[in-house]
Amino acid sequence: MFYSDPHLAYPVRVDKPNPVFARMLQQAIGGIEGEIRVMMQYLFQAWNSRGPVKYRDMLLNTGTEEIGHIEMLATAVALNLEGAPTHMQEQAITQNPVVGAIMGGMNPRHFISSAMGALAEDSNGNPFNGSWIVSTGNIAADMYANVAAETSGRTLVTRLYEWTDDPGMKDTLSFLIARDTMHQNQWLAVLEELEQPLPVPNDFPQAQEKTEFSYSYFVQSSAPIPDHARFTEGPSVDGHGQFSKVEAKPLGQIPTLAPAPLEAHPNVQPGGKGQAVTAGTRTGGKHKKV
Amino acid sequence: MFYSDPHLAYPVRVDKPNPVFARMLQQAIGGIEGEIRVMMQYLFQAWNSRGPVKYRDMLLNTGTEEIGHIEMLATAVALNLEGAPTHMQEQAITQNPVVGAIMGGMNPRHFISSAMGALAEDSNGNPFNGSWIVSTGNIAADMYANVAAETSGRTLVTRLYEWTDDPGMKDTLSFLIARDTMHQNQWLAVLEELEQPLPVPNDFPQAQEKTEFSYSYFVQSSAPIPDHARFTEGPSVDGHGQFSKVEAKPLGQIPTLAPAPLEAHPNVQPGGKGQAVTAGTRTGGKHKKV
Amino acid sequence: MFYSDPHLAYPVRVDKPNPVFARMLQQAIGGIEGEIRVMMQYLFQAWNSRGPVKYRDMLLNTGTEEIGHIEMLATAVALNLEGAPTHMQEQAITQNPVVGAIMGGMNPRHFISSAMGALAEDSNGNPFNGSWIVSTGNIAADMYANVAAETSGRTLVTRLYEWTDDPGMKDTLSFLIARDTMHQNQWLAVLEELEQPLPVPNDFPQAQEKTEFSYSYFVQSSAPIPDHARFTEGPSVDGHGQFSKVEAKPLGQIPTLAPAPLEAHPNVQPGGKGQAVTAGTRTGGKHKKV
Amino acid sequence: MFYSDPHLAYPVRVDKPNPVFARMLQQAIGGIEGEIRVMMQYLFQAWNSRGPVKYRDMLLNTGTEEIGHIEMLATAVALNLEGAPTHMQEQAITQNPVVGAIMGGMNPRHFISSAMGALAEDSNGNPFNGSWIVSTGNIAADMYANVAAETSGRTLVTRLYEWTDDPGMKDTLSFLIARDTMHQNQWLAVLEELEQPLPVPNDFPQAQEKTEFSYSYFVQSSAPIPDHARFTEGPSVDGHGQFSKVEAKPLGQIPTLAPAPLEAHPNVQPGGKGQAVTAGTRTGGKHKKV
Amino acid sequence: MFYSDPHLAYPVRVDKPNPVFARMLQQAIGGIEGEIRVMMQYLFQAWNSRGPVKYRDMLLNTGTEEIGHIEMLATAVALNLEGAPTHMQEQAITQNPVVGAIMGGMNPRHFISSAMGALAEDSNGNPFNGSWIVSTGNIAADMYANVAAETSGRTLVTRLYEWTDDPGMKDTLSFLIARDTMHQNQWLAVLEELEQPLPVPNDFPQAQEKTEFSYSYFVQSSAPIPDHARFTEGPSVDGHGQFSKVEAKPLGQIPTLAPAPLEAHPNVQPGGKGQAVTAGTRTGGKHKKV
Amino acid sequence: MFYSDPHLAYPVRVDKPNPVFARMLQQAIGGIEGEIRVMMQYLFQAWNSRGPVKYRDMLLNTGTEEIGHIEMLATAVALNLEGAPTHMQEQAITQNPVVGAIMGGMNPRHFISSAMGALAEDSNGNPFNGSWIVSTGNIAADMYANVAAETSGRTLVTRLYEWTDDPGMKDTLSFLIARDTMHQNQWLAVLEELEQPLPVPNDFPQAQEKTEFSYSYFVQSSAPIPDHARFTEGPSVDGHGQFSKVEAKPLGQIPTLAPAPLEAHPNVQPGGKGQAVTAGTRTGGKHKKV
Repeated sequence: MFYSDPHLAYPVRVDKPNPVFARMLQQAIGGIEGEIRVMMQYLFQAWNSRGPVKYRDMLLNTGTEEIGHIEMLATAVALNLEGAPTHMQEQAITQNPVVGAIMGGMNPRHFISSAMGALAEDSNGNPFNGSWIVSTGNIAADMYANVAAETSGRTLVTRLYEWTDDPGMKDTLSFLIARDTMHQNQWLAVLEELEQPLPVPNDFPQAQEKTEFSYSYFVQSSAPIPDHARFTEGPSVDGHGQFSKVEAKPLGQIPTLAPAPLEAHPNVQPGGKGQAVTAGTRTGGKHKKV
Repeated sequence: MFYSDPHLAYPVRVDKPNPVFARMLQQAIGGIEGEIRVMMQYLFQAWNSRGPVKYRDMLLNTGTEEIGHIEMLATAVALNLEGAPTHMQEQAITQNPVVGAIMGGMNPRHFISSAMGALAEDSNGNPFNGSWIVSTGNIAADMYANVAAETSGRTLVTRLYEWTDDPGMKDTLSFLIARDTMHQNQWLAVLEELEQPLPVPNDFPQAQEKTEFSYSYFVQSSAPIPDHARFTEGPSVDGHGQFSKVEAKPLGQIPTLAPAPLEAHPNVQPGGKGQAVTAGTRTGGKHKKV
Repeated sequence: MFYSDPHLAYPVRVDKPNPVFARMLQQAIGGIEGEIRVMMQYLFQAWNSRGPVKYRDMLLNTGTEEIGHIEMLATAVALNLEGAPTHMQEQAITQNPVVGAIMGGMNPRHFISSAMGALAEDSNGNPFNGSWIVSTGNIAADMYANVAAETSGRTLVTRLYEWTDDPGMKDTLSFLIARDTMHQNQWLAVLEELEQPLPVPNDFPQAQEKTEFSYSYFVQSSAPIPDHARFTEGPSVDGHGQFSKVEAKPLGQIPTLAPAPLEAHPNVQPGGKGQAVTAGTRTGGKHKKV
Repeated sequence: MFYSDPHLAYPVRVDKPNPVFARMLQQAIGGIEGEIRVMMQYLFQAWNSRGPVKYRDMLLNTGTEEIGHIEMLATAVALNLEGAPTHMQEQAITQNPVVGAIMGGMNPRHFISSAMGALAEDSNGNPFNGSWIVSTGNIAADMYANVAAETSGRTLVTRLYEWTDDPGMKDTLSFLIARDTMHQNQWLAVLEELEQPLPVPNDFPQAQEKTEFSYSYFVQSSAPIPDHARFTEGPSVDGHGQFSKVEAKPLGQIPTLAPAPLEAHPNVQPGGKGQAVTAGTRTGGKHKKV
Repeated sequence: MFYSDPHLAYPVRVDKPNPVFARMLQQAIGGIEGEIRVMMQYLFQAWNSRGPVKYRDMLLNTGTEEIGHIEMLATAVALNLEGAPTHMQEQAITQNPVVGAIMGGMNPRHFISSAMGALAEDSNGNPFNGSWIVSTGNIAADMYANVAAETSGRTLVTRLYEWTDDPGMKDTLSFLIARDTMHQNQWLAVLEELEQPLPVPNDFPQAQEKTEFSYSYFVQSSAPIPDHARFTEGPSVDGHGQFSKVEAKPLGQIPTLAPAPLEAHPNVQPGGKGQAVTAGTRTGGKHKKV
Repeated sequence: MFYSDPHLAYPVRVDKPNPVFARMLQQAIGGIEGEIRVMMQYLFQAWNSRGPVKYRDMLLNTGTEEIGHIEMLATAVALNLEGAPTHMQEQAITQNPVVGAIMGGMNPRHFISSAMGALAEDSNGNPFNGSWIVSTGNIAADMYANVAAETSGRTLVTRLYEWTDDPGMKDTLSFLIARDTMHQNQWLAVLEELEQPLPVPNDFPQAQEKTEFSYSYFVQSSAPIPDHARFTEGPSVDGHGQFSKVEAKPLGQIPTLAPAPLEAHPNVQPGGKGQAVTAGTRTGGKHKKV
């Protein structure tokens, strides 16, 4: 169950509103690298948690924190949109091309759909998509998904920091960057605690995989691959094998599929001209009605 | 530039076709944990690579390999669909409830849209989505995204392995599981080579982030957090700080937004009844037309 | 800023797990009628609020409440999935067709992707979509969007209540139904407070709309429309006009568009055979390069 | 069955084409507030109607009308695109920054994909999405969904009206605004006819909901909630209860989920280190294979 | 502008409702091969038409016809859902496995979201997607898109015809199949009228394309390609060249990209270890701030 | 199985980087007319092929070629982004409005998400969507889908060619245009080989369709249709009938649906006021629980 406080987790300050920056900030709200994604990812992982309770509790805490990050960024979008254009301004553009750049570069929905408010979208107006939420039920896979989310997320926010020239915004973003630093460390700390999580999942018996292919770098390109890279020789990172470098060759068959069932109307009459050479050899009754 | 061989990378064998398993295999083709995703992710990372060429080359090789994995799984789907139902079979269901389970559980598009062929979709028929392709331009963030893809991917394939009782399918899947083992190790090997990639990005000056919040676990839930977890005390994983545990408190303001511009028609008349207490205090001309 | 408590807002009890019901419950989590939608909708409306603060505060409270509803439903999904099938069970189906119905009707991703956990998806596996979040910046439009969300939402939950035969689930759902009752009333209460919100927006001068068409029911079908319905005669609901019934007729032109620019390569040569009768008459230089 | 007339429902006039406005108009075609949505929503509600025939007929009429509104807006888009840029124009931009604003702000697909024609998309190029069509089978829920669509729709069109400085466009839009006025009134008129539709659905016995929570405003934020608001005291809008204000407290349990099935490979060995404190207590055989 | 008649274009009869067939019919409503797609595609092509008016008029007619096909199929869905299950029926399944197949195979939203009505979705519940609407502004490209839509569409409906054993449904579908026959012929007739539309677009000067590659079949696989196929020798179909068969070889460079801008934080320090071998050689100032 | 060469299929040259053109090129990568679509479409058709092996082989070859086209375009995007803006540049815009047009018109994700690299998206940032992949299992339907893809694709690339003023880009695009010429011819050549593919599918007995409607142009609009068009008289293109022109009339019933099941809570009490005139007449027990 959840509670809220109307104060923000950290001050959000915009010294000079910029509607183009409002659009860019949306990536950190509703983009795949954004805060809605991590908020939901951590909460679903918490709610689905079937392992040690301490990870459920930790995920619940941090998922709760992330709701407040969406709030901060939504506020930043709203503040950057104050004073944004609401009508065609040919004369103003002629006098100041910056006005034209803003009218060209802002998200039109920030006026016509939300009246200077944030949207659950990315910087190109793509809506947030629930398929991005990773909650696999494997604790190590989840932690790596979380590290990945925080590394692309922190990278995004540092670029937003570089783009803006607004001191208020830089201050606000520097807080979010710090929290992403923590969260990267936090998920990696869990991976350390798990001790030997690799290969993930670590509880599938490796005897059941084709171990002759488990540590070989497959060369399938004429782009040169060094003999002595970390991934072509020496012990594997999981400590279960030795890396090698292998020229890959096809080991499988040319697939032969049975003809399509007649009810599927494939436009190819059996015994007809086109059918003279059929793809399949395993044709014995397979395509009859069950 | 690319070439192909009509032989499969590894044999694909289906001893007893099962349309429900065909549906489940789609997750490994077109799902977020699937092979289209990793194929495109590695290729886009290669094509966008602006760092050391050896990573461009390595990514190109492995991206090329993954195309063949989609091919294997598509073939597995096609073979599992041979003999699948093409018409309503009330009598057959009555005699054998397994027929009913298959008719209930198969993807209808596997007959009506593709005539017993694979689709670029997941196990629920959701189309593959390009937003899943992560290519950040930050080598470490990309590697973590790749590790994450391979850990959720290998987890998925081991579950498919458990679900099926078909020896041919188990053999085919055990090859894919082995390759996922390699790829997890491969991306982690690059991270080892990068030496000190953390926090990602590692070339944003940490002096510019609010370092007082960079290594603190924020407690925002009454779920108990241990004092002596790996993520609440001791050196941070990136080696740049010390973990601590902090009761989080709001540090920011209650946001006050300016009134909406009149042209946005907010249904709230200025000075009117509802407007008696306005949200914003910074109203000085902000909402006038530019 | 947000806080959480590890206890649920209301008990979630599942007496007899049912994976098919787990799938159906997903509609109330990630569907357009579901709880993620209302949670985000109320919070974005709060964060974007530029009107009276009391509505910002009220929205923040209720948005906070809704997070806990997602939590309850996610828990209900997880509990319904305990003991769900993890392998092909031909023999079991033959003995008990209910097993076949469950294997046919459950969401395969509930095992292969989430290991018996909830997903940010609807009952057919469609991911939650951020485009559903309505925050218009018009207080009355937002309130009607909220009423609409709660009416379709409560309707959904009552149907889930009818479908299940599990006493625990019925108890849990009866709480959510009660809360939807409150929320319908709550948004309608705001509309009462706004007094004269219609037509929305009420601050666009009606003199600027074509008022001769503002209260006429247009008949464009041979399906009979009664002369004396509430919407064909008498005062309009907004009190600004009188309903009437009108046989609609086209008042506009047959559109004539200029030829496509040559650079667009329309496959229709000017002056050529096909072009003898062109669509447009306003051709004077319009399609030249600027 | 449907018929058409090549004349438009109302004149569409563009005095001075503006490709940026063409882009903005797309929101009213393919956006969630747009005309494709209401057209399909009313038609599907008509076709699915299982209640009184007069509502089926009314919905069919108005759904038919809306097709013509898409037609008007598509024509407006096409006319606004006449003369739009088809090549890079560095020199022209230097001489007139308005050209640059247009090249920056127009939808590139309006030239490269549709050759100066309308698309089934919103103003950011997001495709129309069928999930927006609400047809619940509950007459009151459908009517509220329709009111919501028309209030956000009319709000959108008034903002487009404000943005444009083209007299022709203002005339065209003033017709659409008038029709939205009518449609808001029309759906509200049905709700009046239904007399006591609340709470929706009104035919679920309220005795089966937890009525002690049906009319209580839950306080879950430290943002102050007034004691004497319309939604915190007095009779509820549906007339079935009395509003109250309640400090919300968790009434449910801390969820305890059974361990994941071994076949799901959760990376947590039972009895192992990490597993020492398990999340679940109800472990008796639950995760065994069925 | 549009009109409607409450009668259906052709009788829709369901002798024995089948909820699983209702689900399958959805593919013909909201799938990529379905009627919403062709309806919108023809109407947008008509509204965007800048060529001969006779094609605008023809498209408008046929687009209008297609609205009625959606209506027929929506009615077929509604009729197939009458009597569909609304609650868990363990006992009934035990007695009759067909009940289980239906409960497993039906779309749950057909009860919980639409109360036995049609949805704007395909057979797996994917919403209709506006990106499928093709209106290129090139008359020949549009006609081929229309032929493609009708060939996949007629194929789909013939498979639905095969699947059902309901005489009423077979009668209804046989009408739709006939109309698809007409529409295939109709679009091909336009292509005949256009005389020499190939290659599309036919008004791009072929002298500006690399004609040495315009009629060569590129061999990039070891799968054998015959020397004497229609596409490897003889005159090309467009009559502008001679087919040939060519072993493809890379003609381009190994791409060398400039280093990423420092503001992008690529995690690769210039001059650092990893950077010793850079990808790019064109580094002269390119990545400096503009 | 697949191989790659680090060289490009054809040189990619950018003489003067242009971030706006980088955005436009994305349409040819991740748009519905783009190269990811044809690559996957041809490969899935090959992998699903159940007809003559020569078409499987041909599709595999050409699908393989298309991977290299994505690579070329991704490289073109990356080169066009070199030197693109990474920070707000008010002063530079004031001095040169072209800078403002670029900042307004570029895709912000090209900096903040991919650091000057290509994305799996179209020119408006919409992600590639797997639903676009057509593989019907009917050889003729697939070929028409391929022709359609190549005609819209070649049209797109010719427009990109017109838009750019960069000689390098024009050279690169002229190669892709030539390959699209070949592919159009190639798929049409297969259709020639199939001899009598129409109507597609050609193996559904036309006696089972309502042939009285198979070759009639239905007039459903007052837009005039000529008596002597290719599609209103004379032999049909498939050679199986004679075109005619027919005033369409409704042949079907006014649909009457049974009342909704009570468990669906339609808000309409049976026998109640609103229900006095019900839609359905076939009410006999249909809506009872099964």
